[in-house]
Amino acid sequence: MPRTRSALPATGPVRLGPDSRAALRPAAAGIDTGFWQARRASNAHVSIPQGPALLEAAGNLHNLRLAAGTAAGEFQGAYPFVDTDVYKWLEAAAWQLAQAPGEGQAPGEDQAPGEDQAPGEDHAPGEDQAPDGDLAPDGDLAPDGDLAAEVGRIVALVAGAQQPDGYLNTWFQLVKGGERYKDLRWGHELYCAGHLIQAAVAHHRATGSGELLDVALKFADHIDSVFGPPGSGKPIDGIDGHPEVETALVELYRETGERRYLELAAYFVDRYGHGLLGGEAYCQDRVPLREATNVEGHAVRQLYLLAAAADLATETGDAELRTAAERLWHAMTTTKTHLTGGLGAHHEEEDFGDPYELPNERAYCETCAAIASVQWSWRMALLTGEARYSDLIERTLYNGFLAGVSLDGERWLYVNPLQVRDGHTDPGGDQSARRTRWFRCACCPPNVMRLLASLEHYLASGDDNGLQIHQYVSGRYASDLAVIRSETDYPWHGTIALTVEETPAEPWTLSLRIPQWCREFRARCGQETYEGPVADGWLRLERTWSPGDQVVLELSLEPRLTAADPRVDAVRGCVAIERGPLVYCLEGVDHPGGGLDDIVVDTTRPLAVKHRPDLLGGVTTVVAAGSRRHLPDAGWWPYAPVDDSPDSPQQDGECVELTAVPYYAWANREDGSMRVWLPTS
Amino acid sequence: MPRTRSALPATGPVRLGPDSRAALRPAAAGIDTGFWQARRASNAHVSIPQGPALLEAAGNLHNLRLAAGTAAGEFQGAYPFVDTDVYKWLEAAAWQLAQAPGEGQAPGEDQAPGEDQAPGEDHAPGEDQAPDGDLAPDGDLAPDGDLAAEVGRIVALVAGAQQPDGYLNTWFQLVKGGERYKDLRWGHELYCAGHLIQAAVAHHRATGSGELLDVALKFADHIDSVFGPPGSGKPIDGIDGHPEVETALVELYRETGERRYLELAAYFVDRYGHGLLGGEAYCQDRVPLREATNVEGHAVRQLYLLAAAADLATETGDAELRTAAERLWHAMTTTKTHLTGGLGAHHEEEDFGDPYELPNERAYCETCAAIASVQWSWRMALLTGEARYSDLIERTLYNGFLAGVSLDGERWLYVNPLQVRDGHTDPGGDQSARRTRWFRCACCPPNVMRLLASLEHYLASGDDNGLQIHQYVSGRYASDLAVIRSETDYPWHGTIALTVEETPAEPWTLSLRIPQWCREFRARCGQETYEGPVADGWLRLERTWSPGDQVVLELSLEPRLTAADPRVDAVRGCVAIERGPLVYCLEGVDHPGGGLDDIVVDTTRPLAVKHRPDLLGGVTTVVAAGSRRHLPDAGWWPYAPVDDSPDSPQQDGECVELTAVPYYAWANREDGSMRVWLPTS
Repeated sequence: MPRTRSALPATGPVRLGPDSRAALRPAAAGIDTGFWQARRASNAHVSIPQGPALLEAAGNLHNLRLAAGTAAGEFQGAYPFVDTDVYKWLEAAAWQLAQAPGEGQAPGEDQAPGEDQAPGEDHAPGEDQAPDGDLAPDGDLAPDGDLAAEVGRIVALVAGAQQPDGYLNTWFQLVKGGERYKDLRWGHELYCAGHLIQAAVAHHRATGSGELLDVALKFADHIDSVFGPPGSGKPIDGIDGHPEVETALVELYRETGERRYLELAAYFVDRYGHGLLGGEAYCQDRVPLREATNVEGHAVRQLYLLAAAADLATETGDAELRTAAERLWHAMTTTKTHLTGGLGAHHEEEDFGDPYELPNERAYCETCAAIASVQWSWRMALLTGEARYSDLIERTLYNGFLAGVSLDGERWLYVNPLQVRDGHTDPGGDQSARRTRWFRCACCPPNVMRLLASLEHYLASGDDNGLQIHQYVSGRYASDLAVIRSETDYPWHGTIALTVEETPAEPWTLSLRIPQWCREFRARCGQETYEGPVADGWLRLERTWSPGDQVVLELSLEPRLTAADPRVDAVRGCVAIERGPLVYCLEGVDHPGGGLDDIVVDTTRPLAVKHRPDLLGGVTTVVAAGSRRHLPDAGWWPYAPVDDSPDSPQQDGECVELTAVPYYAWANREDGSMRVWLPTS
Repeated sequence: MPRTRSALPATGPVRLGPDSRAALRPAAAGIDTGFWQARRASNAHVSIPQGPALLEAAGNLHNLRLAAGTAAGEFQGAYPFVDTDVYKWLEAAAWQLAQAPGEGQAPGEDQAPGEDQAPGEDHAPGEDQAPDGDLAPDGDLAPDGDLAAEVGRIVALVAGAQQPDGYLNTWFQLVKGGERYKDLRWGHELYCAGHLIQAAVAHHRATGSGELLDVALKFADHIDSVFGPPGSGKPIDGIDGHPEVETALVELYRETGERRYLELAAYFVDRYGHGLLGGEAYCQDRVPLREATNVEGHAVRQLYLLAAAADLATETGDAELRTAAERLWHAMTTTKTHLTGGLGAHHEEEDFGDPYELPNERAYCETCAAIASVQWSWRMALLTGEARYSDLIERTLYNGFLAGVSLDGERWLYVNPLQVRDGHTDPGGDQSARRTRWFRCACCPPNVMRLLASLEHYLASGDDNGLQIHQYVSGRYASDLAVIRSETDYPWHGTIALTVEETPAEPWTLSLRIPQWCREFRARCGQETYEGPVADGWLRLERTWSPGDQVVLELSLEPRLTAADPRVDAVRGCVAIERGPLVYCLEGVDHPGGGLDDIVVDTTRPLAVKHRPDLLGGVTTVVAAGSRRHLPDAGWWPYAPVDDSPDSPQQDGECVELTAVPYYAWANREDGSMRVWLPTS
């Protein structure tokens, strides 16, 4: 049952300040049915409800009790940033609480695991309710009955652990004897503060409660009393090895109007790159952002820092910072982004790697990096009004991000490779190519939860002239000016039917993002028809609208074969299958009788599309013609002179039908091989 | 001045036991001039003499004094295995002492840095003496005057650090309060013992002195009293996380005749793969060697373990172990070996990676893994008599191994990538693509030293029927039966002139390895001419020989373009340039006016050869035709539908002459880009 305007969540992670220079303002949106509703249902009814038990089992909540003095025992966990797992879960739960209550009981409620369910158990709640295979139940996303109580309970644990002067980090309080800010390179104290602040802002925005916000404000004030530039009278001129507090402080300024937080964020951002942490790229300390020519170092650190730069440029009008962010975004997308939107080429140091170094099997593409990329790009979209930022968001959401969570919402990928070879030896643990119930470094799962719970925030924007639709869903978009109802089966079908529900009498512009991947589209609006191309990614329909007016946008979803810039050495001689915003892959399980590594795709034969409601929660597959190479036994050495090739036996092979499934859905069946890029000869 | 038979080193790292089942026995050999003599001169007169000062500066010798109680201070170094840097240097120095003294002073002697030279100084000793550019002086390799004294001094330090019951590990003695064998997974205690034993065996073989051997025997006996299978009455049933002691114990058996050491080695080898260390592939503990189907885990650990398996099969006739070693060698070469012979695809955990996962820029190819590969393959060559093992040794020596040391013998590479991109951001430290003076984990430099100092051991073998020449050098080969003098300018020229110097009256077989890479050869022997191919890699010349008989072998050194098995995804659509045993690469410094990443090689044009005595110590370059792509600006997204390509601007480019230099010589000029594999379109 679709929500009315008043029921749309009117809030989200980014709320612009009064002096903001943003081109666009986030608009409210609500997803009612369809692709993303299914993912959000599994997040709401499986992932988020299971969080407290998992955090309990991993010791995160125990650490808070220890710090509060209400429990005894040893600190649990291997990292100084384990508190952030709690904070990110709280942020996710808060966005969930922001969902207006639905008309009935949440359908998944009775499947939400109670405290008696061990986190390691292989239990798929809601399996029998799922109408579409593996997916968790669709339906109302109103929070399950006890979520508010769970949040309250855990907020109290956080508050209890805080020290009187506002400091809060259970690792340093419990393991390091209360030592503070002595190991800024690795200590993650400000990083933890950042996630606490973001959770507190979400909690305040979603519930109106100041309970967690008070904790965050005390910590922020403490940090502000300690950190500052030389001459400021503050004891420490320093930055955290992991950027994160900066964008949180900007949001705290936006929430409270207190400019000290904005200034503190600006100070931190500008102190990176000056050797305060030893000058390592890993910590974003090799070169100042304003001078950098490409993204580098630890991907998530780089991206959180750039999100803060975008926030600061938005709030302060700092043109140099904006130019730097635009320059680095362009350098990143042209030279360091995988087809899936995944970021980070190296396992070692979780590093971006060199330009055009985009390996497949060793693609790191941390799920958190995909999330950080969405956060940064959304801030860039608001700041500039340019569509390309939401192009990247779409690609990332449907591929590099969504692959991070299993269809049932219970298992996770930390790294998101684009290839798993036949004969793969899996390392297990956080870097496994097999979905895992929880991680030793559990940053990704609650990060996925908070993005899915706040996904409606990233769909639309408004400005004085109208409403811009960035992402296509079934539901409503509502700017200050107007409300649009949307019905679509995107991304499986390309038709999006938009109906004006509320509109002023004056003319305004409805802007529709025509995705970068889309080569043909048609929009019908009354008697008029629009066809591409559009120069800047926006189809702008300016007119006087009346309630009931309809725009039908048809995006051609012809499947396509995609090749890479020739400097991407890893995929030379290969193509990938894509359809709409979806990147496809082959999985070994769909190709019995041999592995994937001998397969060649025939690019001269047409691609066929087949919707499979039975498969992977319902997916449209793409079927391609291919063959399986017969390789001659070349002896013990796999390299040979090229002019020997004519003499060697012909590499003919048997024809095989290749069934490609959306990349986001891989690794949801049996363990096995997978590949996105397919050799053409 | 060539050495006489009696002056040939009659010893080396492998001496077969009396019951050995080896097909071949190591034969004595001596290198007089030419390619390898230049490398050995730089090792003898630069690398090895600089060792003590570097070990002093890094704290390794200080640790020994601390453990002996003759100095005060803190333990230096970051690893529990820092003692092995000393042991490997001692082994290298011992093999150097095994060189018979020459007729005159060693030419490099007065350049050997004394204790007043700091290890970090950028000083190239012998530069003014080098007749061939950057290379250290050629000439007599008799040890510099004070080497024996240095060895004696450091042997005494080692002996002084040993505890009364034979245990010796400065890390555990000094940092861990004497705790022993509590952290077998990471402690490296037996690994350290292994390198101590190998050094002691070398010292004993080279000098006849039992001083270091006594230390090793005490430690070995201690280990034998502690470790054993359940029911043996020994307190610990365990293995070391890093195999190494096993092959050392076999050699200690060979040196002393004490079978307990052989049995202890056999026990250790067979306890891997049973979960004693938690079951990780990293520690070779996932699966027993006898059941393994491919090499896996940490490359050096795997290779040292396999060298021990070959030793055990040789000494005990264990057919199952031999079969496993042969199977794993074949699996490794067909699926996990880089063109250079380099091994280990992952930086993360220094792991072998999956089959056919052979990245270029992230090739780990640790220098130590190349050395371990030579050690294992030589044992396989002796065990089986098959030529392919020495084929891999040749490829490894000239490429993946030799790249590990700079031309001047003063700087090192720990990892040996096959590509450094334009715009590479170098991490510095041990994983740098720039040559480094010493490493935090300094395993590679003294490992290179010990292999170069004992290189003559890997050149030839004998059996009851004759002499086998595995590697071609200028010098002499001497089995029990005969002595052959060899003159060649290999690998720059393909002619090898072999003259019989000593021979029995009875007929015997001179076997010449025809390299796997060689497609055409001709051997003239008196009136007879032999041409290829040879079925098993050996050209066998059986006859009655007389002193003065000559065999002239001509190996065709036509440069060639090489392609890889199509399953090696990383090099699809690329070729490499090779000539003889040498793999070539392009360096940015030879291609000004643009980077290497836009270059395409024209495979239809002939390759030209140009010897450049002025370049890189004298190298033969290969010149190829190529072009520099002009890439259209594709906007912000580097992926596009393939059927868009015809519409996009033609990728024509300017013609460029490509100058390829031997891979071993890369990174000896300015920092910059490099690539072995070249796109063909």
